[in-house]
Amino acid sequence: MADFAKFDAYVRAHTAEYVDELKALVRQPSVSAQGIGIDETAAIVLDRARARGGLAADALRVSSGPPTIVGQAGTGARTLLVYDHYDVQPPDPLDEWDTPPFEPTERDGFLFGRGVSDNKGNLMARLQAIEAYRATIGDLPLRVRVLYEGEEESGSVHLADFVRTHGDRLRADGCIWEAGYKDAAGRPTVSCGLKGIAYVELHVRGAAKDAHSSLGTIVPNAAWRLVWALATLKNDRDEITIDGFMDKVRAPTAADLQALERLPFDEDATRRIHGITRFVRGLTGLELKKKHFYEPTCTICGIVSGYTGAGSKTVLPAVASAKIDFRLVPDLTPDIVATLLRAHLDRRGFTDIEVVAGHGESPSRWPTDSVAARAAVEACRATYGRDPVVYPLMAGSGPMAQVCDALRIPVVGFGSGNASSANHAPNENIAIADYVDHIRAFGRFLHVFAGLAL
Amino acid sequence: MADFAKFDAYVRAHTAEYVDELKALVRQPSVSAQGIGIDETAAIVLDRARARGGLAADALRVSSGPPTIVGQAGTGARTLLVYDHYDVQPPDPLDEWDTPPFEPTERDGFLFGRGVSDNKGNLMARLQAIEAYRATIGDLPLRVRVLYEGEEESGSVHLADFVRTHGDRLRADGCIWEAGYKDAAGRPTVSCGLKGIAYVELHVRGAAKDAHSSLGTIVPNAAWRLVWALATLKNDRDEITIDGFMDKVRAPTAADLQALERLPFDEDATRRIHGITRFVRGLTGLELKKKHFYEPTCTICGIVSGYTGAGSKTVLPAVASAKIDFRLVPDLTPDIVATLLRAHLDRRGFTDIEVVAGHGESPSRWPTDSVAARAAVEACRATYGRDPVVYPLMAGSGPMAQVCDALRIPVVGFGSGNASSANHAPNENIAIADYVDHIRAFGRFLHVFAGLAL
Repeated sequence: MADFAKFDAYVRAHTAEYVDELKALVRQPSVSAQGIGIDETAAIVLDRARARGGLAADALRVSSGPPTIVGQAGTGARTLLVYDHYDVQPPDPLDEWDTPPFEPTERDGFLFGRGVSDNKGNLMARLQAIEAYRATIGDLPLRVRVLYEGEEESGSVHLADFVRTHGDRLRADGCIWEAGYKDAAGRPTVSCGLKGIAYVELHVRGAAKDAHSSLGTIVPNAAWRLVWALATLKNDRDEITIDGFMDKVRAPTAADLQALERLPFDEDATRRIHGITRFVRGLTGLELKKKHFYEPTCTICGIVSGYTGAGSKTVLPAVASAKIDFRLVPDLTPDIVATLLRAHLDRRGFTDIEVVAGHGESPSRWPTDSVAARAAVEACRATYGRDPVVYPLMAGSGPMAQVCDALRIPVVGFGSGNASSANHAPNENIAIADYVDHIRAFGRFLHVFAGLAL
Repeated sequence: MADFAKFDAYVRAHTAEYVDELKALVRQPSVSAQGIGIDETAAIVLDRARARGGLAADALRVSSGPPTIVGQAGTGARTLLVYDHYDVQPPDPLDEWDTPPFEPTERDGFLFGRGVSDNKGNLMARLQAIEAYRATIGDLPLRVRVLYEGEEESGSVHLADFVRTHGDRLRADGCIWEAGYKDAAGRPTVSCGLKGIAYVELHVRGAAKDAHSSLGTIVPNAAWRLVWALATLKNDRDEITIDGFMDKVRAPTAADLQALERLPFDEDATRRIHGITRFVRGLTGLELKKKHFYEPTCTICGIVSGYTGAGSKTVLPAVASAKIDFRLVPDLTPDIVATLLRAHLDRRGFTDIEVVAGHGESPSRWPTDSVAARAAVEACRATYGRDPVVYPLMAGSGPMAQVCDALRIPVVGFGSGNASSANHAPNENIAIADYVDHIRAFGRFLHVFAGLAL
């Protein structure tokens, strides 16, 4: 039997050093959307992968993409792929941060800074876990491969090409994905996939320029055209009504529904957090969870037309725009959404509405009983002393399909985040205790995934 | 027979002096929305009414309202009320003016400046016509009363009270309203009423604050609520579908429709001006004119929710707002609209949508064969050498009901504006020739309205 008490003691003894190493990585900005600090950060990550993780690692590029770090260490029957990214979201709005985003700061047991949760913390914790494993348990009993991307926050535009070119260095029997969070009640969670996303903009032009509103009788109004078109996409029961859209949604199986029955979901806490008295359609219980985890969304993220300042202006707007975000479950893809949406609008005479496809990612869903998933559950149980909550899909999105569907690698996700980690927002944070626990959990995960007993 | 050739010669001889007098009035800003120069302008107008028009005039106030000028001159069987306003719209956006708004400037036969068209030009022209009439034709053969308001551009909030208090100084057999324009083809027009207006804002609050769009499955979205509610107000055939709304629309009579058949309406020119290939519903001919002149509107003037900047943001908006402008025909009123709209939304479960009533004015429609209307047509025919186009209602709005419906005075409107006068916009203008013609037309109108032959 491996001595994980010794492993834990080692991690405790090195906590200050590990946190300092994370702080050094956070202190280096790496904002892919603004092209800030990408090469510098890649160099640090490559060095840490070699020095801390003992990986044989390289920084590679495809076409004009950023450096992508790949590496491996250990030998064994099974191979695990670790996916993380070293780039971060822009820190704006700066004035809402209590301490500067790139000056990592400890406060009340939490570490604040851009990227501590998404995703430099998990990246660093996993390398540190490999070191601690070697120092206390022994040689790695499996092959660990890493894939550290530098433009996850900018749409991962080169990743599919990278996987096609360098797939042989990425093949594995299971993958741990970047993120994982404790839920609002503090329960550890394990997820087995991500929803996809299709972000589109709708643009309408009516008259050549804004007109006086007295012409509302006879001159087409871009705002009305947009409202009418939008109202055909989803009805006021919150049912997506795009022709053929819901036909593409794979229904949950009986086993999925049984698991969903058991899955805890704090309705009161969720309503309280969002300041609402009821969920859409008044849903509750299993139906609510089913909609949240197994159904796609069609969300107006923004809409604007005409005069929106104070007071009144009697204007007939010439242009109108909306931004719509579809969260996708299998078997929807961004291409399917774009095709169905265009056909749906054309069929109803909305040929005047331009659809501009933006960021898109396919959903990626994996069995909850894969070797990786079962190992994650066992590792979390041993680390946290309780069963983790297993989600079939996380509601967020990421380039999982480009990697794991392309290479057919079952995925699991767990990590050091919490329900208020504020990813993409000011005061991004993780608890130091959760960071340490993720090192502990990942060390155990390596062991169990390799086929060994805790 | 009166010698209007002599009248015309007198006006021609005094044109430079008359235009200078108008320029002096325009040079004095009088922006009621910003409380700028109202008392100063009222003093100038009172002085001009006495000196130029020879009126016994006073500046009166009700409660905290601005000075309102009333006055009268002449004797005769008939009494004419002249309604004008001395306040103007704010001049913004200043950088779009070719010459400063309060430095009246002649260029290519036009006079540019804030208020030259709306409505200081007509106010001054009519006083100058009274002087020219006296100088060339003789004593006024009728009683002329004036009502010069100082807050028409700010909703005329004290006017109804003023009319209740001082109605005895306003009673008349006919009224000439402030505005009148040549149409796009240069034809003089005469109108016999105004549409009303009801400006409302709709506000929706969903969650307490914006949420991550992955919660679009279960957290109510304010933007969607607003879109769904709006889509129940008017359908994509441009038919207003508010319960009971269209029942309040008085249908045009057979005589109205016959007049409408004859009314010229330049469809090609109108489409060209607005850069559109077809009117709403593909309408043309009588049906198009019927919708424009005899139907109300429900126009989205502005709508905003969520993220409207560049790029994408995956946000679920907590608040959404729309500004809606209803142009009203008889027998709709702002109160009826507010009541029907609230009941309509409540009946469909949109109790979460707040309706805030803004500026409102009732429609005011008068016979096209009143003494005033017939006198206007005859005066215009004599002045311009062609029949004017007679509109049943102008598509714009104003406080006509507060004055003329309250006192039951048939109204007519004609004036010195043109189809590109740019009221409320930068580079407001009138043609000097149109200004002179309005003096000529108004002199003749006084004569005919008094029952005399030209």
